[in-house]
Amino acid sequence: MIKKNYLLAPGPTPVPIDILLEGAKDTIHHRTPQFKKIFEEAVKGTKEVFRTENELFILASSGTGAMEMAVTNIVNPGEKVLVFSVGKFGERWTEIAKVFGANVVLVEREYGDFYTPEMVEEAIEKNPDAVAVLTTLSETSTGAVMDIEGISRVVKAAGKLIAVDCISGLVAEPLETDKWGLDIVVSGSQKGFMLPPGLAYISLSKAAIEKAQTTKSTSFYFNLKKYLKDPLPWTPAVNLIYQQRAAVDMLLKEGMENVWARHAVMGKATREAVKAMGLELFSKRPGNVLTSVKVPEGVDGGKIVSIMRDEYGVTIAGGQGSMKGNIFRIAHLGYMSDFDVVTALTALEKVLRRLGYSVEFGTGTKVAMEIFEREGV
Amino acid sequence: MIKKNYLLAPGPTPVPIDILLEGAKDTIHHRTPQFKKIFEEAVKGTKEVFRTENELFILASSGTGAMEMAVTNIVNPGEKVLVFSVGKFGERWTEIAKVFGANVVLVEREYGDFYTPEMVEEAIEKNPDAVAVLTTLSETSTGAVMDIEGISRVVKAAGKLIAVDCISGLVAEPLETDKWGLDIVVSGSQKGFMLPPGLAYISLSKAAIEKAQTTKSTSFYFNLKKYLKDPLPWTPAVNLIYQQRAAVDMLLKEGMENVWARHAVMGKATREAVKAMGLELFSKRPGNVLTSVKVPEGVDGGKIVSIMRDEYGVTIAGGQGSMKGNIFRIAHLGYMSDFDVVTALTALEKVLRRLGYSVEFGTGTKVAMEIFEREGV
Repeated sequence: MIKKNYLLAPGPTPVPIDILLEGAKDTIHHRTPQFKKIFEEAVKGTKEVFRTENELFILASSGTGAMEMAVTNIVNPGEKVLVFSVGKFGERWTEIAKVFGANVVLVEREYGDFYTPEMVEEAIEKNPDAVAVLTTLSETSTGAVMDIEGISRVVKAAGKLIAVDCISGLVAEPLETDKWGLDIVVSGSQKGFMLPPGLAYISLSKAAIEKAQTTKSTSFYFNLKKYLKDPLPWTPAVNLIYQQRAAVDMLLKEGMENVWARHAVMGKATREAVKAMGLELFSKRPGNVLTSVKVPEGVDGGKIVSIMRDEYGVTIAGGQGSMKGNIFRIAHLGYMSDFDVVTALTALEKVLRRLGYSVEFGTGTKVAMEIFEREGV
Repeated sequence: MIKKNYLLAPGPTPVPIDILLEGAKDTIHHRTPQFKKIFEEAVKGTKEVFRTENELFILASSGTGAMEMAVTNIVNPGEKVLVFSVGKFGERWTEIAKVFGANVVLVEREYGDFYTPEMVEEAIEKNPDAVAVLTTLSETSTGAVMDIEGISRVVKAAGKLIAVDCISGLVAEPLETDKWGLDIVVSGSQKGFMLPPGLAYISLSKAAIEKAQTTKSTSFYFNLKKYLKDPLPWTPAVNLIYQQRAAVDMLLKEGMENVWARHAVMGKATREAVKAMGLELFSKRPGNVLTSVKVPEGVDGGKIVSIMRDEYGVTIAGGQGSMKGNIFRIAHLGYMSDFDVVTALTALEKVLRRLGYSVEFGTGTKVAMEIFEREGV
């Protein structure tokens, strides 16, 4: 059998061939009216995906760069920030905030768990001097999704700034930057946007920009003042910008509500199917981005991932950090449809059987396809 | 006439179609043995182009990001650095060093000029407490090329660290990282490497890495310690890495000495040809990267660039900052050959005639082609 590649990890995600070819178009100079037009269209479309009329910048960096840009421009050394963490990417907020000298108050819960608006409210009450709250829409390391709408409500009520890492969450999960009053939203290209990695995005509210004016940024590359003066302060990743324009065009043609609904049903189908295989979900508040599953007793978790990848050509993700070997993560993120979910489930059945776990072929397909059919997909 | 695009600016430069298509290959996951192999080959080839066995990292950023990485990892706030500047990119070193709190001693000469090993030696004698010297191989804003071999000799004799911005210079100009003892060399993808923009590179000597161990870096994304632990601390720009591997393969097959010789003769041919048109060179030490030319009396410099670009499809660069309207810059950098030089010269003749400057068609071609023929190209 030829070995085709199926990318079912929570980033990078599959890139549609039309988007790949868009990136193969002739590189033009970035300081020309011709490029300016393309860039402005890419930014406009990206704002629509973010559901915002805030300032939005496209960076040549990975998503972590946009997180750094958020912190260094709104937090002065010594200022207090509240960080909420339920996994590796909450920890990343903490690490970044500490590098820039913030006084970090960390509210941490174990991997797989989530935090609520009430918990955020309580932490703000205890720390009325905090200037900003750093949160995560979708914690990629566990698949937990936070109620950012509710969390933002309590943060805004307290008059604080809220920054949200939406790197893996955007596109898959409903997100309303303006309606929910999100001051800073960051994301990256290799997730829901269906692009190769290399771009990051950051949107900033008026309040965030105002705070940045009085912040002593110790970054040059990610200095907001540079971007406010010229949205292309450095040479942009020209060909990825072509791809960005094409990708947001695809998303907006499908319609964000439809995109969210598609991801929601893929998430639901995957969860119900793995449960039907007798497996247990890991995340306490799973969502539309990925499904994290506990490795069943007696099965080698590392082998699930490596056999699927190296022998079947199917790339899912293992656990990160302390989760290594204990969970695996199947993404349903980006350029994905019902049959991709079936592929993931079938490959999982195949590898579980190989590793001695008893499951009938088609168990996943039956449950998933019934859900898709019921939901009219 | 159809309007084809000819990119003759000092970055982005033309990308060979094979390299563009390499970037259109299926995006794979970056945490897999399959990608690791590709990445290691890309790094190995890039080191050969840098002529180094030092550590070398490939960043998802533009070249400015690599400059920031150089400064923030080797200079503590309050430490003295010597910056030599003869144009916009020397000024960028100064700006970055100041953002990170360095005590900057600036040796500045006017645009178009250059600095010598003797000047560097003198500045070091006056500032024995400086920890590092920040220099530029090719000052892109003017085309001036510095004698980095000679400069490094005096910097190393004084026991200081030397960092060299080789963003536009690498590949076009001979550069020997190890032989010349260069502690930090930075470059970017959209110049001599013939790639779309989006990648930057940084090589670091043992001495630079040692200094970094005692430096309090105020960067997270560009923190060297992260890269030393894992050369892929963040999601890399996967498809650009495919292209990087393919591009260094092309360069190394041609052979770096041949690549340098090709650029040298293209530079010489361009300079002699524009002089034969009665034009005056701007840079006092021009090199192989680009030729900067003074706008002749009575001609609108902005129009030279805009008419060539918007009407002829030929993109060259105007002057930057205070040079705007006073000079224009024709690159002979990257994926370029003799006939590309002829295109540039002929388009220049066409626009000059249009703007009232008297020059016979073929003046440039005659001089350039005779030089190419004499040099056996």
